Amino acid sequence: MSDALDQFTRRMAQIKRLSEVAGLLGWDQQTYMPPGAAVGRGEQSAVLYRLIHDMLVGPETEALLSGAERATAGEDPESDAVRMVAAARRDFDRETKVPSDLVAEMSRHRAISHSVWVQARKASDFTAFAPALEKMMELTRRRAECLGYTEHIYDALLDVYEPGMKQADVARTFAELRPALVELTHAIGESSAPVDAALLHRTYPVDVQRTLTLSLAAEFGFDLRRGRQDEAAHPFCSGFNRDDVRITTRFDPDYLGQALYATLHETGHGLYEQGYPPQYDGTPLGAGCSLGIHESQSRLWENLVGRSRAYCEHVFPKLQAAFPEPLAGESAERLYRAVNAVRPSFIRVEADEVTYNLHIMLRFELECALLTGELAVKDLPDAWNAKMEAYFGLTPPSDAEGVLQDVHWSEGLVGYFPTYSIGNLVSGQLWNAIRKAVPDIEEQVRRGAFAELLEWLRANIHRQGRRYLPGELVQRATGEPLTSRYYVEYLRTKFGEIYAL
Amino acid sequence: MSDALDQFTRRMAQIKRLSEVAGLLGWDQQTYMPPGAAVGRGEQSAVLYRLIHDMLVGPETEALLSGAERATAGEDPESDAVRMVAAARRDFDRETKVPSDLVAEMSRHRAISHSVWVQARKASDFTAFAPALEKMMELTRRRAECLGYTEHIYDALLDVYEPGMKQADVARTFAELRPALVELTHAIGESSAPVDAALLHRTYPVDVQRTLTLSLAAEFGFDLRRGRQDEAAHPFCSGFNRDDVRITTRFDPDYLGQALYATLHETGHGLYEQGYPPQYDGTPLGAGCSLGIHESQSRLWENLVGRSRAYCEHVFPKLQAAFPEPLAGESAERLYRAVNAVRPSFIRVEADEVTYNLHIMLRFELECALLTGELAVKDLPDAWNAKMEAYFGLTPPSDAEGVLQDVHWSEGLVGYFPTYSIGNLVSGQLWNAIRKAVPDIEEQVRRGAFAELLEWLRANIHRQGRRYLPGELVQRATGEPLTSRYYVEYLRTKFGEIYAL
Repeated sequence: MSDALDQFTRRMAQIKRLSEVAGLLGWDQQTYMPPGAAVGRGEQSAVLYRLIHDMLVGPETEALLSGAERATAGEDPESDAVRMVAAARRDFDRETKVPSDLVAEMSRHRAISHSVWVQARKASDFTAFAPALEKMMELTRRRAECLGYTEHIYDALLDVYEPGMKQADVARTFAELRPALVELTHAIGESSAPVDAALLHRTYPVDVQRTLTLSLAAEFGFDLRRGRQDEAAHPFCSGFNRDDVRITTRFDPDYLGQALYATLHETGHGLYEQGYPPQYDGTPLGAGCSLGIHESQSRLWENLVGRSRAYCEHVFPKLQAAFPEPLAGESAERLYRAVNAVRPSFIRVEADEVTYNLHIMLRFELECALLTGELAVKDLPDAWNAKMEAYFGLTPPSDAEGVLQDVHWSEGLVGYFPTYSIGNLVSGQLWNAIRKAVPDIEEQVRRGAFAELLEWLRANIHRQGRRYLPGELVQRATGEPLTSRYYVEYLRTKFGEIYAL
Repeated sequence: MSDALDQFTRRMAQIKRLSEVAGLLGWDQQTYMPPGAAVGRGEQSAVLYRLIHDMLVGPETEALLSGAERATAGEDPESDAVRMVAAARRDFDRETKVPSDLVAEMSRHRAISHSVWVQARKASDFTAFAPALEKMMELTRRRAECLGYTEHIYDALLDVYEPGMKQADVARTFAELRPALVELTHAIGESSAPVDAALLHRTYPVDVQRTLTLSLAAEFGFDLRRGRQDEAAHPFCSGFNRDDVRITTRFDPDYLGQALYATLHETGHGLYEQGYPPQYDGTPLGAGCSLGIHESQSRLWENLVGRSRAYCEHVFPKLQAAFPEPLAGESAERLYRAVNAVRPSFIRVEADEVTYNLHIMLRFELECALLTGELAVKDLPDAWNAKMEAYFGLTPPSDAEGVLQDVHWSEGLVGYFPTYSIGNLVSGQLWNAIRKAVPDIEEQVRRGAFAELLEWLRANIHRQGRRYLPGELVQRATGEPLTSRYYVEYLRTKFGEIYAL
């Protein structure tokens, strides 16, 4: 390795290690930190993040990055070195394009806006939140202008989470998806098939849930020597590096679905994080490709595997052995129907597989319109409710159950929502490719054999780290660009059968 | 506040916050970190500690420190500002006096020496460890010369842990203490009083131990909104700042004494850490005065309170309610005798109150002699065994149970051992002062009323933070310089009665 590349790599490793430490601060805050420690934790995070930012954008890093670019100029564009330098350049440009004054102003406003939103949601009063959102949108527009774009202002923001993807790509994909989902939702609403989730809403002792969910994570292949599971109010996965990956879940003694599917979902994220190749440790390549690709992994294990009939047949005997009382007289088939009950609702985070993406489309359309100024903030609740009516046939009884339900906009996370749907679509597209590569995959799942599935994901997704942009990665893994086709097919087949459509 | 002082304070706060983060890395490593994450954690710590060191000794800090010294030159020497600058100066000088080459060489040798010691102890083979110890002593001598001293080379090292204390002070104090302890140990050995610890060695369910020990910590005044208790193989207390203090304990299902007294001990440390005044947060004064003073707090709550008859009378009904089976037919008096059983042994960490300090004296004498060259490393095991015979009438059956039992020397921690005994002596001296200030303190303990005791410690020790050197602090709190007198009186009275001497 050239000296220039070596020096650059060492600098990147320092920054990466400090980012891992910042990750631990976040994990601890959501799991074990005493409540009284919040102010001090804020100070610790602020000092550490400022330090990381200064290291990342400082002139020393810029000089080392330019040196590394010169040193790798003639090399194979597929080589790790070239890919690493390219990823670092994207990070560097993104961090430096926005002037620090604007970064600081957004950071200050984010704190205010978030707490205003918390109060407004509690009071279900959108007008109380409107001025803060107005300002957040204005700051977000300025940020997008700094980041730059060629076609649509939204592109600048989306690129932060889903590098290389454009507003037009999302709009086109959603345009294909929307009529199919609306139609399917409507047909399910008309169905009289006996599908309900009642068996999940019984008494499931938390201690047993804890042991059981951990064993299910391990069975998928989550390595407990390099990871663990804890509890958190809002389940998440923190992967500091491939050898320290921590998933969290939440237990509800009266609802098995909460911990069970939170665990399978976070395990999907965790398997991805544990699967980066060791040689990417401490480099810009040792991370997930994008938020959408990350979500494809969690959704694949949660839904394509975890909500399949094959998995229900595999897991039901374990569940019944662990919870003999609430599951007495039940069956794998009744479990399968319970975990696939579809019911249009107001709340995104409670949505089933069929209606979930409609929630995302609604938000995507509204945030695009807010950003371009087509929609005024004051008109947002009406626009929200009109779309709810159009997509779900429902009108939210209050702003708290409508336009105020999500935290994202209050924190300036515009361009983030589509990544959830991209994750769903990619999970369907990957599953289609896996079924071709591993024809007996359903039989394997039924037997509780997940190794071949995991190895396919390792080879095609996990071990690629951040080598490719998400579009490239999907193309390489499946032979096609991102499409909604397989996800729609999957939903139609599965729910068509369950609901006898 | 002057600009210079303000800038200096902000710099110190940054360094302090990063040190708190480093503390979290250490806590996590000993509690929840997955085993496979050790290598990555080592990298994270190394990067963070190097950064902290660079910030602490850099020319910017030196300039700010000098500026702060000039800005506070004429001020009241008792003011927080003057005390803070003085504490920072001590830290700065200590960090900068040792050249970074020697720091790096010690750090490299520490890693080697530690792992050689682990192997040598396993094989009970001192000769395998001798060359590593020889080199460590040589490096330690060089370090002491860099740190500087006027009377005894040991002073330079002791000062790191117990600022302002001299080898001669320790030697004189131990000279008073030694004959009293040897005599008392001998007399107890001759006693036929019925004292044994059998009742502690029964089956105590771990879940119940966990709930109970936490409630005992809270009862002493440990604030669970600003702290927590977890499990660790070697119990410790991590106080990142006054609002985030984490104690740990260890549970043995067949021995109640382990978790019970580890909890009371670590709670003593934890109360100290939670007791710094809020205005010292993020400053060089928001920390413990010295290792010895810290140990005085843990020992006071563990022994002077926790092993008193009054406390046994208070806690026995709680224990019996929690563990009805193993404690059926027992009494507070039998508990009191069980937790105060004295038995000379080879192992320091298992020693009782009477013999503990003899273990420390033996180490202090040997490390002084090693440092000055009076004792050669090759002659250390014989010297160790000769002192064991003289103080305890025992000869260790192996080096593993003798000279190889402690980790300290393998890590270059020379000058550290006396702080354990200083802690014991100070705890006795403080307890004497408390009995004068709060004449009914034993009656209060019997009732489980600890607030007045805690407030005395808060006012006289905790809220002083690092304002004073330990010698000054003891003088101010008790009206006398450090003396072994009260600790010896305490032991004679207590064990004289228990063993009917």
